[in-house]
Amino acid sequence: MNAAQLSNRSQVEPFRVMRMLDLVQRRAREGKETIMLCAGQPETGAPEAVLHEAEIALRSSPLGYTEVLGDRQLREAVAAWHSATYGVDTNADNVIVTTGSSGAFVAAFLAVLDQGDSVALSCPGYPAYRNILGALGAQIVDLQCGEETRFQPTAAMLEALPEKPKAVIVTSPGNPTGTIIDPAELERIAEWCDLNGTVLISDEDYHGMSFGRPTATARAYSENAITVGTLSKYFSMTGWRVGWMIVPDYMVDALENLLGSLALCAPAISQVAGRAAFTLEAAAELDQHVAVYQETREVFLAELPKIGLGTFAEPDGGLYLWVDVSDYTQDSEAWARELVEEIGVAVAPGVDFDPHHGNQWVRLSLCASAADAREACRRLGEFLAR
Amino acid sequence: MNAAQLSNRSQVEPFRVMRMLDLVQRRAREGKETIMLCAGQPETGAPEAVLHEAEIALRSSPLGYTEVLGDRQLREAVAAWHSATYGVDTNADNVIVTTGSSGAFVAAFLAVLDQGDSVALSCPGYPAYRNILGALGAQIVDLQCGEETRFQPTAAMLEALPEKPKAVIVTSPGNPTGTIIDPAELERIAEWCDLNGTVLISDEDYHGMSFGRPTATARAYSENAITVGTLSKYFSMTGWRVGWMIVPDYMVDALENLLGSLALCAPAISQVAGRAAFTLEAAAELDQHVAVYQETREVFLAELPKIGLGTFAEPDGGLYLWVDVSDYTQDSEAWARELVEEIGVAVAPGVDFDPHHGNQWVRLSLCASAADAREACRRLGEFLAR
Repeated sequence: MNAAQLSNRSQVEPFRVMRMLDLVQRRAREGKETIMLCAGQPETGAPEAVLHEAEIALRSSPLGYTEVLGDRQLREAVAAWHSATYGVDTNADNVIVTTGSSGAFVAAFLAVLDQGDSVALSCPGYPAYRNILGALGAQIVDLQCGEETRFQPTAAMLEALPEKPKAVIVTSPGNPTGTIIDPAELERIAEWCDLNGTVLISDEDYHGMSFGRPTATARAYSENAITVGTLSKYFSMTGWRVGWMIVPDYMVDALENLLGSLALCAPAISQVAGRAAFTLEAAAELDQHVAVYQETREVFLAELPKIGLGTFAEPDGGLYLWVDVSDYTQDSEAWARELVEEIGVAVAPGVDFDPHHGNQWVRLSLCASAADAREACRRLGEFLAR
Repeated sequence: MNAAQLSNRSQVEPFRVMRMLDLVQRRAREGKETIMLCAGQPETGAPEAVLHEAEIALRSSPLGYTEVLGDRQLREAVAAWHSATYGVDTNADNVIVTTGSSGAFVAAFLAVLDQGDSVALSCPGYPAYRNILGALGAQIVDLQCGEETRFQPTAAMLEALPEKPKAVIVTSPGNPTGTIIDPAELERIAEWCDLNGTVLISDEDYHGMSFGRPTATARAYSENAITVGTLSKYFSMTGWRVGWMIVPDYMVDALENLLGSLALCAPAISQVAGRAAFTLEAAAELDQHVAVYQETREVFLAELPKIGLGTFAEPDGGLYLWVDVSDYTQDSEAWARELVEEIGVAVAPGVDFDPHHGNQWVRLSLCASAADAREACRRLGEFLAR
């Protein structure tokens, strides 16, 4: 018995960002300091209001299974927040709480895709889509998105495809690019999907973190869209593993059946405490974090060109900055490992996000403090000048 | 756009136990009391030592992502507990922490099964296996297990199959039957699997809860087995969503890659606090719960025959009692709904666990107190005598 026992579909690409994170955590155990620019992970922890509710829940509830579709009060909080934020009418019955947005993607893909169905997604993009879809037997159709469309897909790209995909994923603010899709373009994509029987999956995980541009929800343009969100990013609760999907009526029962077997329910304490993430008190705290990300962004925009890294996607929001490093390496993974070992700066290798050109790019995180960003640029500058 | 957009593989059976749980929770919101005999869910909550560690973690850690394979200290705690409990040598490197054992099953199935591969499993059995496997395109081979083998599979059943399955799942103590497989038979099954290139997946979620019979780990008989465990059952932490798998060396990398995309990591607070579930202090508390389950079992064994329910699987451990109700219904789901509405007693309909004969069976939970079990039997007796 040996590796031949493994399935073909288990042969997914390693998720190198998570491996970099592991490397940094191993270094920490060895007492080595690292400036973390590799994970899309706020360092700030959950809002005080959430911590307070978690403390109460620990002592007042056995924290057993919640309903499969999620704690009802949390679903109502998500629906109210979504309706108020976007001026749409989102009902709690359409909100399904999942174990992180990861749980939403797995369930959504199973709900709409059969073996061999095709999914169009932007490249560069979030690697987990590609990896999960591969493991589930879907065909991936790359939409090459560069500077000319600010790294976001367009309805024209979909129209130009030789075959209509079964589903399309749009991520805005983007990962790894931080660019925000124009609301009018998102509307055109939603209309194209409705017209062509394609399911639009809108990853809105980075909403709440815009540095000026408007962010629209796909649900404003089509009730058939699947909208995905999370407590991990703006709400600063990565390790709590709570996400959600807002889905059309006709999908709810199928998703309840799938999730009942795939997951049973999302973590109870995270759900119960997570209700408080939608309070005004939490928002005041969380908006301060966004101000810090923006400050870090300004440091990168000013410093990167000075040290020879002048080509990058200018982030409109989100947590990342996507930098062209082709003048220095054609192997961004080896280069990223070298940076950690040599100068204690962890960046995410671009190969995760773009199988075609990612060997020439890396992703920086805006979660570091401005001071850390400045120090990272100083070390990088010295390193690149060697 | 409508239900025609759903995939064929989303057409999984509803998980009726979870739906009963939802029904009970809806009743609770309406102020209606229900005796809960439907979910495999301890009502006791996490051990004090875990709650204490959770409180500390809330204030001392940002609770971000853990390593994909799990918090290292938790992996070490599981390995030490597993080694000490079974007298085997389990290394933390082979322990992978997952989001409940649900997360372990999804990842294990993807790691070893390709579209169309077959999996043998006992019938009656845990419905989520069947549902997940169906969604992932596996072929299910039922091993009909009745009283003659105490509702557990045998190596002889595997030998009698027309084709060798790619994997076999053994669950002991069983769900829904509570019966424990004989260690010698588990050894024969492990040997048969090794000889035939079949992956043995041993669901040991209900270990720690035996009423006398020995429970063996599959890992004692084969290092190729995948052993699955959870903090949900013996450790009384259902809603915390922490499980684990203990896997052969050659599977670790593939599972890390899969889990990095499927889940990122299990909930951080549950992992950090969950380390304390393996302390002696926690064990003292948890063993008292098992004494309560045993007391409830004794009530059922004494009372059920008196009210006309004399045919059942006598539980050796675990949390359930599997009862033949064929004298009263041929539709256990409708009957279970009737019981909730009429007498406020929630049982799990057998159709979840056995697609062939489950319409004539229901599953009772041993998690209720002895007093609740006695009251439930009184109400059931009156209802059946009408």
